[in-house]
Amino acid sequence: MYFEGSEKKAEIIIDSEQMSLLKDIDDSFWATLVEQCHAKILSTISNQTCKAFLLSESSLFVWADRIVILTCGVTKLVNSVEYFIAQIGQAKIKQVIYQRKNEYFSHEQLSCFGDDIKLLSQYVEGKALRFGELDSHHTYVFHQDNDFTASSTDKTYELLAYQISSQASIALTTPNLSAQEIRSFLAIDELLDGFIIDDFVFQPFGYSLNAIKDNDYLTIHVTPQESSSYVSFESNLNLLAMAPKILAILSPASFDILTFNEADFHGLTLKHIPSDYVSQSLVQSELTNGYQVAFANFIKPQTSYSQAKIIDINGENHAL
Amino acid sequence: MYFEGSEKKAEIIIDSEQMSLLKDIDDSFWATLVEQCHAKILSTISNQTCKAFLLSESSLFVWADRIVILTCGVTKLVNSVEYFIAQIGQAKIKQVIYQRKNEYFSHEQLSCFGDDIKLLSQYVEGKALRFGELDSHHTYVFHQDNDFTASSTDKTYELLAYQISSQASIALTTPNLSAQEIRSFLAIDELLDGFIIDDFVFQPFGYSLNAIKDNDYLTIHVTPQESSSYVSFESNLNLLAMAPKILAILSPASFDILTFNEADFHGLTLKHIPSDYVSQSLVQSELTNGYQVAFANFIKPQTSYSQAKIIDINGENHAL
Repeated sequence: MYFEGSEKKAEIIIDSEQMSLLKDIDDSFWATLVEQCHAKILSTISNQTCKAFLLSESSLFVWADRIVILTCGVTKLVNSVEYFIAQIGQAKIKQVIYQRKNEYFSHEQLSCFGDDIKLLSQYVEGKALRFGELDSHHTYVFHQDNDFTASSTDKTYELLAYQISSQASIALTTPNLSAQEIRSFLAIDELLDGFIIDDFVFQPFGYSLNAIKDNDYLTIHVTPQESSSYVSFESNLNLLAMAPKILAILSPASFDILTFNEADFHGLTLKHIPSDYVSQSLVQSELTNGYQVAFANFIKPQTSYSQAKIIDINGENHAL
Repeated sequence: MYFEGSEKKAEIIIDSEQMSLLKDIDDSFWATLVEQCHAKILSTISNQTCKAFLLSESSLFVWADRIVILTCGVTKLVNSVEYFIAQIGQAKIKQVIYQRKNEYFSHEQLSCFGDDIKLLSQYVEGKALRFGELDSHHTYVFHQDNDFTASSTDKTYELLAYQISSQASIALTTPNLSAQEIRSFLAIDELLDGFIIDDFVFQPFGYSLNAIKDNDYLTIHVTPQESSSYVSFESNLNLLAMAPKILAILSPASFDILTFNEADFHGLTLKHIPSDYVSQSLVQSELTNGYQVAFANFIKPQTSYSQAKIIDINGENHAL
């Protein structure tokens, strides 16, 4: 059984002097927004500065002046972005950033990144870049190119783990796992202190978690099945510092780290990435909107041979 | 400008006591066969045991008892295989092997491997395996599962190079290169001695070469453009032994080696693969038709940062 865990992601920043996305927008707007890409809201948590929605396909975070939305599977997130722009109005929007990473099964997707930026370009003038090589892990970033300049304190981190260890995959595909059991396995209590947590266990497999504390947020999405395992962490907390713990638990064959505005990316990777991983890609660029973006893909070199994966000829092989 | 260099490949072995594919089949059959996947024959060379066709999309080799066909781009090679089976008849066919590797732009393809094996399974009972991880380079192999047993002397080698060095890419995208200039760059004279050679330079870029000598064959296909560079070698000559020379010329960021019936795959990789490459995947399996198949993907770890690739928003981005 295959599932596309890879997320598309959008961040949209508005002029908070004109409106507050927390006070001036009600939840029915967000429900309609996520419906545009065929996702739905499962549950909500909030504090004074942030509202976090757990979705049937990943997560939506709303602050007064911005949203961050991630959706996986075959969702067409660009439709939700288009809806936001159309409803809120371009005059209030300071910055649109739209990201898309290489999928496991890109032929199953309803659009490609090229299609998506063609659509977005009808609304906002922008630039696009690719971080990483085409034949390996890579992330595309489209961003509005206007007079907006990012604050250097606006930092975000993504850690994307692929091909987690058999032990981790087996543990996370145990039937009828509770959310608490998955939190324990992922050592959430050690990673997060004092956060409000909202999580959901999907059937037959899969797990999503949103966590917020003041202005901090973390979201985790787990696609545990061994054939196409993928676990993503996205946060404004320093995931490079958390990487040793996360990698010890999941032991992925490969992982990506993407950061916005982490000035010491290289130093932190040297400090925190275990030495049994090597870099396949190392990319750094400054976007014209002021964000310093860094991307690295790490792999664990293999020294022993595995058997080829046997494919069930009569199975659902549309994803292959 | 993007081009999908990745090939699909088929090998079909017939009962040579019932017919000879060289003597009993004329060239119009092969022309029609390759038309089934929208390729066409550009030129032909032959010796007493083999006829080699250079195609608009890669190559077809015909011996008395077998064919090997490779096609790149968005060709649907499975249609040519279906045509062969239908025309020659299942009773004369001893073995069908159909391979497909992960593409750069899989969403551009007319079918996926799952679709292809569903079609082939209507004609031949088979098995399918995947060599390599889903999130990195991998090759799917479908093979007929019958009483055929491969000879241990039936060896083939593939060396697939990705992201060749800037210098190699620049050299191979020089306007108006002659075939002789490309042969010199690839040091064909050092690799091959006494072979009949047929090659073709595509416009604006691209190069294909077929070479035969007695029962030996080698085919090379070059997609040199820096955005999606790919160079494939397929032969019954020992490409592991040739790897040091090939890798020195192309200096790819990554390459795959796939062998059928090379018993000392591991020893030869230790001996011939330069130490600045590490293995991302190492897979070995014996197919039920008797072939010992080995696959390895090697990468060159990066230590310095590159800039993100800028994408022309107004360009032809359908492949992204």
